[in-house]
Amino acid sequence: MRDKAARTRSELIRSAATVFAEHGYSRAKLSSISADAGVSRGALYFHFPSKEALADAVEAAAAERFAGVTGHEDVNGARDLSRAVRAFADLYRQNVIFRAGVLLSCEKDRKSTVNLIQQWEEYVSTAVAAAERGYPFARSGVAGHASSAIVAMTVGLAFLWHENEQWLAESTVTGVWNLLPPLVGRMG
Amino acid sequence: MRDKAARTRSELIRSAATVFAEHGYSRAKLSSISADAGVSRGALYFHFPSKEALADAVEAAAAERFAGVTGHEDVNGARDLSRAVRAFADLYRQNVIFRAGVLLSCEKDRKSTVNLIQQWEEYVSTAVAAAERGYPFARSGVAGHASSAIVAMTVGLAFLWHENEQWLAESTVTGVWNLLPPLVGRMG
Repeated sequence: MRDKAARTRSELIRSAATVFAEHGYSRAKLSSISADAGVSRGALYFHFPSKEALADAVEAAAAERFAGVTGHEDVNGARDLSRAVRAFADLYRQNVIFRAGVLLSCEKDRKSTVNLIQQWEEYVSTAVAAAERGYPFARSGVAGHASSAIVAMTVGLAFLWHENEQWLAESTVTGVWNLLPPLVGRMG
Repeated sequence: MRDKAARTRSELIRSAATVFAEHGYSRAKLSSISADAGVSRGALYFHFPSKEALADAVEAAAAERFAGVTGHEDVNGARDLSRAVRAFADLYRQNVIFRAGVLLSCEKDRKSTVNLIQQWEEYVSTAVAAAERGYPFARSGVAGHASSAIVAMTVGLAFLWHENEQWLAESTVTGVWNLLPPLVGRMG
Protein backbone atom coordinates (compact mmCIF):
# COMPACT_ATOMS: atom_id res chain seq x y z
CA MET A 1 0.00 0.00 0.00
CA ARG A 2 2.81 2.35 0.79
CA ASP A 3 4.35 1.63 -2.58
CA LYS A 4 1.09 2.42 -4.28
CA ALA A 5 0.80 5.75 -2.45
CA ALA A 6 4.36 6.67 -3.40
CA ARG A 7 3.64 5.72 -7.00
CA THR A 8 0.47 7.82 -7.08
CA ARG A 9 2.33 10.74 -5.58
CA SER A 10 5.05 10.61 -8.20
CA GLU A 11 2.51 10.21 -11.00
CA LEU A 12 0.75 13.31 -9.72
CA ILE A 13 4.05 15.23 -9.73
CA ARG A 14 4.71 14.20 -13.32
CA SER A 15 1.17 15.14 -14.44
CA ALA A 16 1.38 18.45 -12.62
CA ALA A 17 4.73 19.18 -14.30
CA THR A 18 3.21 18.42 -17.72
CA VAL A 19 0.21 20.67 -17.11
CA PHE A 20 2.28 23.51 -15.54
CA ALA A 21 4.78 23.38 -18.43
CA GLU A 22 1.98 23.49 -20.98
CA HIS A 23 -0.38 26.07 -19.48
CA GLY A 24 1.59 27.93 -16.81
CA TYR A 25 0.87 27.93 -13.11
CA SER A 26 -2.19 30.20 -12.97
CA ARG A 27 -4.09 28.52 -15.78
CA ALA A 28 -3.27 24.94 -14.76
CA LYS A 29 -6.39 23.08 -13.61
CA LEU A 30 -6.25 20.55 -10.79
CA SER A 31 -8.93 18.55 -12.61
CA SER A 32 -6.60 18.15 -15.63
CA ILE A 33 -3.77 17.07 -13.34
CA SER A 34 -5.79 14.38 -11.55
CA ALA A 35 -7.33 13.16 -14.82
CA ASP A 36 -3.91 13.02 -16.47
CA ALA A 37 -2.54 10.99 -13.57
CA GLY A 38 -5.59 8.71 -13.71
CA VAL A 39 -6.57 9.38 -10.09
CA SER A 40 -9.63 10.91 -8.42
CA ARG A 41 -9.76 14.48 -7.12
CA GLY A 42 -9.93 12.96 -3.62
CA ALA A 43 -6.67 11.09 -4.19
CA LEU A 44 -5.04 14.30 -5.42
CA TYR A 45 -6.14 16.21 -2.30
CA PHE A 46 -4.95 13.35 -0.11
CA HIS A 47 -1.42 13.93 -1.39
CA PHE A 48 -1.49 17.66 -2.11
CA PRO A 49 -3.86 20.01 -0.28
CA SER A 50 -3.47 22.80 -2.86
CA LYS A 51 -2.07 23.76 -6.26
CA GLU A 52 0.67 25.61 -4.38
CA ALA A 53 1.67 22.37 -2.62
CA LEU A 54 1.81 20.58 -5.98
CA ALA A 55 3.97 23.32 -7.49
CA ASP A 56 6.33 23.12 -4.50
CA ALA A 57 6.61 19.35 -5.00
CA VAL A 58 7.36 19.80 -8.72
CA GLU A 59 10.07 22.33 -7.90
CA ALA A 60 11.61 20.04 -5.28
CA ALA A 61 11.64 17.13 -7.75
CA ALA A 62 13.19 19.39 -10.41
CA ALA A 63 15.86 20.53 -7.95
CA GLU A 64 16.76 16.88 -7.29
CA ARG A 65 17.32 16.30 -11.00
CA PHE A 66 19.31 19.52 -11.17
CA ALA A 67 21.52 18.34 -8.31
CA GLY A 68 22.28 15.27 -10.44
CA VAL A 69 23.81 17.74 -12.94
CA THR A 70 25.66 20.03 -10.59
CA GLY A 71 25.95 18.19 -7.32
CA HIS A 72 29.62 17.36 -7.20
CA GLU A 73 31.39 18.19 -4.00
CA ASP A 74 33.82 20.46 -5.79
CA VAL A 75 33.41 22.43 -8.95
CA ASN A 76 36.56 21.94 -10.97
CA GLY A 77 36.07 24.76 -13.39
CA ALA A 78 35.99 24.58 -17.15
CA ARG A 79 35.46 20.85 -17.61
CA ASP A 80 32.60 20.69 -15.11
CA LEU A 81 31.06 23.80 -16.55
CA SER A 82 30.81 22.68 -20.16
CA ARG A 83 29.44 19.35 -18.93
CA ALA A 84 26.86 21.13 -16.79
CA VAL A 85 25.73 23.35 -19.66
CA ARG A 86 25.26 20.33 -21.89
CA ALA A 87 23.39 18.54 -19.09
CA PHE A 88 21.18 21.57 -18.40
CA ALA A 89 20.22 21.69 -22.10
CA ASP A 90 19.57 17.94 -22.33
CA LEU A 91 17.56 17.88 -19.13
CA TYR A 92 15.48 20.87 -20.18
CA ARG A 93 14.40 19.30 -23.45
CA GLN A 94 14.03 15.72 -22.21
CA ASN A 95 12.64 16.03 -18.72
CA VAL A 96 9.28 17.67 -18.19
CA ILE A 97 9.76 17.85 -14.41
CA PHE A 98 13.00 19.81 -14.75
CA ARG A 99 11.46 22.02 -17.43
CA ALA A 100 8.39 22.74 -15.29
CA GLY A 101 10.66 23.54 -12.34
CA VAL A 102 12.61 26.10 -14.37
CA LEU A 103 9.40 27.64 -15.72
CA LEU A 104 7.84 27.77 -12.25
CA SER A 105 10.86 29.66 -10.94
CA CYS A 106 10.08 32.39 -13.51
CA GLU A 107 6.37 32.70 -12.65
CA LYS A 108 5.35 36.06 -11.31
CA ASP A 109 2.18 34.67 -9.72
CA ARG A 110 3.83 32.67 -6.97
CA LYS A 111 6.85 32.63 -4.78
CA SER A 112 9.23 29.77 -5.55
CA THR A 113 10.46 27.66 -2.69
CA VAL A 114 13.38 26.59 -4.87
CA ASN A 115 14.48 29.05 -7.52
CA LEU A 116 16.24 26.93 -10.14
CA ILE A 117 17.34 29.88 -12.25
CA GLN A 118 19.02 31.38 -9.21
CA GLN A 119 20.67 28.03 -8.39
CA TRP A 120 21.90 27.84 -11.96
CA GLU A 121 23.37 31.36 -11.73
CA GLU A 122 25.18 30.44 -8.51
CA TYR A 123 26.53 27.22 -9.96
CA VAL A 124 27.78 28.97 -13.12
CA SER A 125 29.54 31.79 -11.29
CA THR A 126 31.26 29.38 -8.90
CA ALA A 127 32.43 27.25 -11.81
CA VAL A 128 33.64 30.25 -13.84
CA ALA A 129 35.58 31.56 -10.84
CA ALA A 130 37.22 28.13 -10.44
CA ALA A 131 38.04 28.06 -14.15
CA GLU A 132 39.58 31.53 -13.92
CA ARG A 133 41.88 30.47 -11.09
CA GLY A 134 43.23 27.66 -13.26
CA TYR A 135 43.58 29.85 -16.33
CA PRO A 136 46.45 32.26 -16.07
CA PHE A 137 45.64 34.18 -19.26
CA ALA A 138 42.24 35.46 -18.22
CA ARG A 139 41.80 39.18 -18.66
CA SER A 140 40.52 40.65 -15.44
CA GLY A 141 36.78 41.20 -15.35
CA VAL A 142 36.10 38.54 -17.97
CA ALA A 143 34.85 36.01 -15.42
CA GLY A 144 31.81 38.04 -14.34
CA HIS A 145 30.80 38.67 -17.93
CA ALA A 146 31.41 35.03 -18.82
CA SER A 147 29.00 33.94 -16.07
CA SER A 148 26.35 36.37 -17.31
CA ALA A 149 26.87 35.25 -20.89
CA ILE A 150 26.55 31.56 -20.01
CA VAL A 151 23.39 32.05 -17.94
CA ALA A 152 21.79 34.33 -20.55
CA MET A 153 22.66 31.91 -23.32
CA THR A 154 21.31 28.80 -21.62
CA VAL A 155 18.13 30.57 -20.53
CA GLY A 156 17.69 32.08 -24.02
CA LEU A 157 18.24 28.74 -25.78
CA ALA A 158 15.75 27.04 -23.44
CA PHE A 159 13.19 29.76 -24.01
CA LEU A 160 13.60 29.65 -27.80
CA TRP A 161 13.36 25.84 -27.78
CA HIS A 162 9.61 26.21 -27.16
CA GLU A 163 9.37 27.84 -30.61
CA ASN A 164 11.73 25.48 -32.40
CA GLU A 165 13.46 22.39 -31.00
CA GLN A 166 16.65 23.08 -32.96
CA TRP A 167 17.63 25.67 -30.34
CA LEU A 168 18.57 22.95 -27.87
CA ALA A 169 19.97 20.50 -30.43
CA GLU A 170 23.44 19.24 -29.48
CA SER A 171 25.01 20.98 -32.50
CA THR A 172 23.48 24.36 -31.56
CA VAL A 173 24.53 24.15 -27.91
CA THR A 174 28.07 23.04 -28.85
CA GLY A 175 28.44 25.67 -31.59
CA VAL A 176 27.24 28.49 -29.38
CA TRP A 177 29.35 27.36 -26.44
CA ASN A 178 32.53 27.16 -28.50
CA LEU A 179 32.24 30.85 -29.40
CA LEU A 180 32.89 31.74 -25.77
CA PRO A 181 36.44 32.47 -24.60
CA PRO A 182 38.69 29.42 -24.02
CA LEU A 183 38.56 30.28 -20.32
CA VAL A 184 35.34 28.30 -20.02
CA GLY A 185 36.53 25.23 -21.93
CA ARG A 186 35.59 23.57 -25.20
CA MET A 187 32.77 21.18 -25.99
CA GLY A 188 33.67 18.21 -28.17
CA MET B 1 -12.41 65.09 -33.07
CA ARG B 2 -10.20 62.98 -35.27
CA ASP B 3 -7.23 63.93 -33.16
CA LYS B 4 -9.05 62.89 -30.04
CA ALA B 5 -9.95 59.50 -31.54
CA ALA B 6 -6.33 58.95 -32.59
CA ARG B 7 -5.15 59.89 -29.11
CA THR B 8 -7.63 57.53 -27.46
CA ARG B 9 -6.55 54.75 -29.78
CA SER B 10 -2.90 55.20 -28.93
CA GLU B 11 -3.66 55.44 -25.21
CA LEU B 12 -5.53 52.15 -25.48
CA ILE B 13 -2.55 50.54 -27.21
CA ARG B 14 -0.23 51.72 -24.46
CA SER B 15 -2.57 50.49 -21.69
CA ALA B 16 -3.03 47.17 -23.45
CA ALA B 17 0.75 46.79 -23.74
CA THR B 18 1.15 47.50 -20.01
CA VAL B 19 -1.52 44.97 -19.05
CA PHE B 20 -0.30 42.29 -21.51
CA ALA B 21 3.31 42.72 -20.33
CA GLU B 22 2.24 42.43 -16.70
CA HIS B 23 -0.31 39.61 -16.83
CA GLY B 24 0.17 37.87 -20.18
CA TYR B 25 -2.36 37.68 -22.97
CA SER B 26 -4.83 35.16 -21.57
CA ARG B 27 -5.14 36.73 -18.15
CA ALA B 28 -5.31 40.35 -19.35
CA LYS B 29 -8.74 41.87 -18.69
CA LEU B 30 -10.30 44.35 -21.13
CA SER B 31 -11.82 46.16 -18.14
CA SER B 32 -8.31 46.84 -16.74
CA ILE B 33 -7.17 48.09 -20.13
CA SER B 34 -10.05 50.54 -20.56
CA ALA B 35 -9.79 51.72 -16.94
CA ASP B 36 -6.04 52.20 -17.28
CA ALA B 37 -6.55 54.29 -20.44
CA GLY B 38 -9.28 56.29 -18.69
CA VAL B 39 -11.94 55.42 -21.29
CA SER B 40 -15.26 53.58 -21.18
CA ARG B 41 -15.74 49.99 -22.31
CA GLY B 42 -17.81 51.39 -25.18
CA ALA B 43 -14.91 53.55 -26.36
CA LEU B 44 -12.60 50.54 -26.21
CA TYR B 45 -14.97 48.45 -28.35
CA PHE B 46 -15.34 51.35 -30.76
CA HIS B 47 -11.61 51.11 -31.49
CA PHE B 48 -10.97 47.42 -30.94
CA PRO B 49 -13.71 44.82 -31.34
CA SER B 50 -11.79 42.14 -29.41
CA LYS B 51 -8.77 41.39 -27.24
CA GLU B 52 -7.23 39.75 -30.29
CA ALA B 53 -7.57 43.03 -32.25
CA LEU B 54 -5.89 44.91 -29.40
CA ALA B 55 -3.02 42.42 -29.29
CA ASP B 56 -2.58 42.75 -33.07
CA ALA B 57 -2.41 46.54 -32.69
CA VAL B 58 0.19 46.26 -29.90
CA GLU B 59 2.31 43.96 -32.06
CA ALA B 60 2.05 46.31 -35.03
CA ALA B 61 3.09 49.28 -32.87
CA ALA B 62 5.99 47.24 -31.44
CA ALA B 63 7.10 46.28 -34.95
CA GLU B 64 7.21 49.97 -35.88
CA ARG B 65 9.54 50.69 -32.98
CA PHE B 66 11.61 47.68 -33.93
CA ALA B 67 11.92 49.00 -37.50
CA GLY B 68 13.38 52.15 -35.98
CA VAL B 69 16.20 49.92 -34.67
CA THR B 70 16.77 47.73 -37.69
CA GLY B 71 15.20 49.52 -40.61
CA HIS B 72 18.21 50.64 -42.60
CA GLU B 73 18.10 49.86 -46.26
CA ASP B 74 21.33 47.88 -46.04
CA VAL B 75 22.79 45.98 -43.18
CA ASN B 76 26.46 46.81 -43.05
CA GLY B 77 27.54 44.02 -40.79
CA ALA B 78 29.39 44.28 -37.51
CA ARG B 79 28.83 47.95 -36.74
CA ASP B 80 25.09 47.80 -37.42
CA LEU B 81 24.80 44.59 -35.47
CA SER B 82 26.34 45.79 -32.23
CA ARG B 83 24.24 48.95 -32.48
CA ALA B 84 21.09 46.88 -33.05
CA VAL B 85 21.81 44.64 -30.06
CA ARG B 86 22.29 47.66 -27.82
CA ALA B 87 19.09 49.21 -29.23
CA PHE B 88 17.11 45.98 -28.74
CA ALA B 89 18.22 45.87 -25.09
CA ASP B 90 17.44 49.55 -24.47
CA LEU B 91 14.07 49.36 -26.17
CA TYR B 92 13.10 46.22 -24.26
CA ARG B 93 13.73 47.76 -20.89
CA GLN B 94 12.46 51.26 -21.67
CA ASN B 95 9.50 50.74 -23.95
CA VAL B 96 6.51 48.79 -22.71
CA ILE B 97 4.99 48.55 -26.21
CA PHE B 98 8.09 46.91 -27.62
CA ARG B 99 8.37 44.63 -24.58
CA ALA B 100 4.70 43.60 -24.88
CA GLY B 101 5.19 42.92 -28.59
CA VAL B 102 8.14 40.60 -27.90
CA LEU B 103 6.24 38.82 -25.12
CA LEU B 104 3.12 38.45 -27.30
CA SER B 105 5.20 36.81 -30.02
CA CYS B 106 6.12 34.11 -27.48
CA GLU B 107 2.53 33.43 -26.33
CA LYS B 108 1.28 29.96 -27.02
CA ASP B 109 -2.38 31.02 -26.73
CA ARG B 110 -2.57 33.07 -29.88
CA LYS B 111 -1.12 33.35 -33.33
CA SER B 112 1.07 36.43 -33.80
CA THR B 113 0.43 38.57 -36.84
CA VAL B 114 3.95 39.94 -36.45
CA ASN B 115 6.48 37.67 -34.82
CA LEU B 116 9.15 40.00 -33.43
CA ILE B 117 11.43 37.20 -32.25
CA GLN B 118 11.44 35.80 -35.76
CA GLN B 119 12.12 39.26 -37.23
CA TRP B 120 15.00 39.62 -34.80
CA GLU B 121 16.43 36.24 -35.84
CA GLU B 122 16.24 37.26 -39.50
CA TYR B 123 17.87 40.62 -38.87
CA VAL B 124 20.70 39.07 -36.86
CA SER B 125 21.51 36.36 -39.39
CA THR B 126 21.54 38.86 -42.27
CA ALA B 127 23.85 41.16 -40.31
CA VAL B 128 26.18 38.33 -39.27
CA ALA B 129 26.41 37.11 -42.87
CA ALA B 130 27.29 40.67 -43.98
CA ALA B 131 29.91 40.90 -41.22
CA GLU B 132 31.40 37.58 -42.29
CA ARG B 133 31.82 38.78 -45.88
CA GLY B 134 33.83 41.75 -44.62
CA TYR B 135 35.91 39.67 -42.22
CA PRO B 136 38.41 37.48 -44.00
CA PHE B 137 39.56 35.60 -40.91
CA ALA B 138 36.22 34.04 -40.08
CA ARG B 139 36.43 30.30 -39.53
CA SER B 140 33.82 28.63 -41.68
CA GLY B 141 30.64 27.73 -39.85
CA VAL B 142 31.15 30.38 -37.19
CA ALA B 143 28.56 32.73 -38.69
CA GLY B 144 25.59 30.40 -38.11
CA HIS B 145 26.63 29.79 -34.51
CA ALA B 146 27.28 33.50 -33.99
CA SER B 147 23.71 34.30 -35.07
CA SER B 148 22.30 31.68 -32.71
CA ALA B 149 24.50 32.93 -29.88
CA ILE B 150 23.43 36.55 -30.38
CA VAL B 151 19.72 35.73 -30.55
CA ALA B 152 19.89 33.38 -27.54
CA MET B 153 21.86 35.94 -25.55
CA THR B 154 19.55 38.86 -26.23
CA VAL B 155 16.43 36.80 -25.58
CA GLY B 156 17.99 35.35 -22.41
CA LEU B 157 19.05 38.77 -21.10
CA ALA B 158 15.57 40.19 -21.78
CA PHE B 159 13.93 37.26 -20.05
CA LEU B 160 16.22 37.50 -17.00
CA TRP B 161 15.67 41.26 -16.80
CA HIS B 162 12.19 40.54 -15.41
CA GLU B 163 13.90 39.00 -12.37
CA ASN B 164 16.61 41.60 -12.00
CA GLU B 165 17.09 44.78 -14.01
CA GLN B 166 20.89 44.43 -13.98
CA TRP B 167 20.61 41.87 -16.78
CA LEU B 168 19.90 44.61 -19.33
CA ALA B 169 22.19 47.24 -17.81
CA GLU B 170 24.55 48.76 -20.36
CA SER B 171 27.58 47.25 -18.62
CA THR B 172 26.10 43.73 -18.72
CA VAL B 173 25.11 43.94 -22.39
CA THR B 174 28.51 45.39 -23.38
CA GLY B 175 30.46 42.87 -21.27
CA VAL B 176 28.57 39.89 -22.63
CA TRP B 177 28.76 41.15 -26.21
CA ASN B 178 32.51 41.67 -26.07
CA LEU B 179 33.06 37.99 -25.23
CA LEU B 180 31.81 37.08 -28.70
CA PRO B 181 34.32 36.64 -31.54
CA PRO B 182 35.66 39.88 -33.12
CA LEU B 183 33.73 38.92 -36.26
CA VAL B 184 30.66 40.60 -34.79
CA GLY B 185 32.39 43.82 -33.70
CA ARG B 186 33.14 45.46 -30.38
CA MET B 187 30.93 47.61 -28.20
CA GLY B 188 32.54 50.70 -26.75
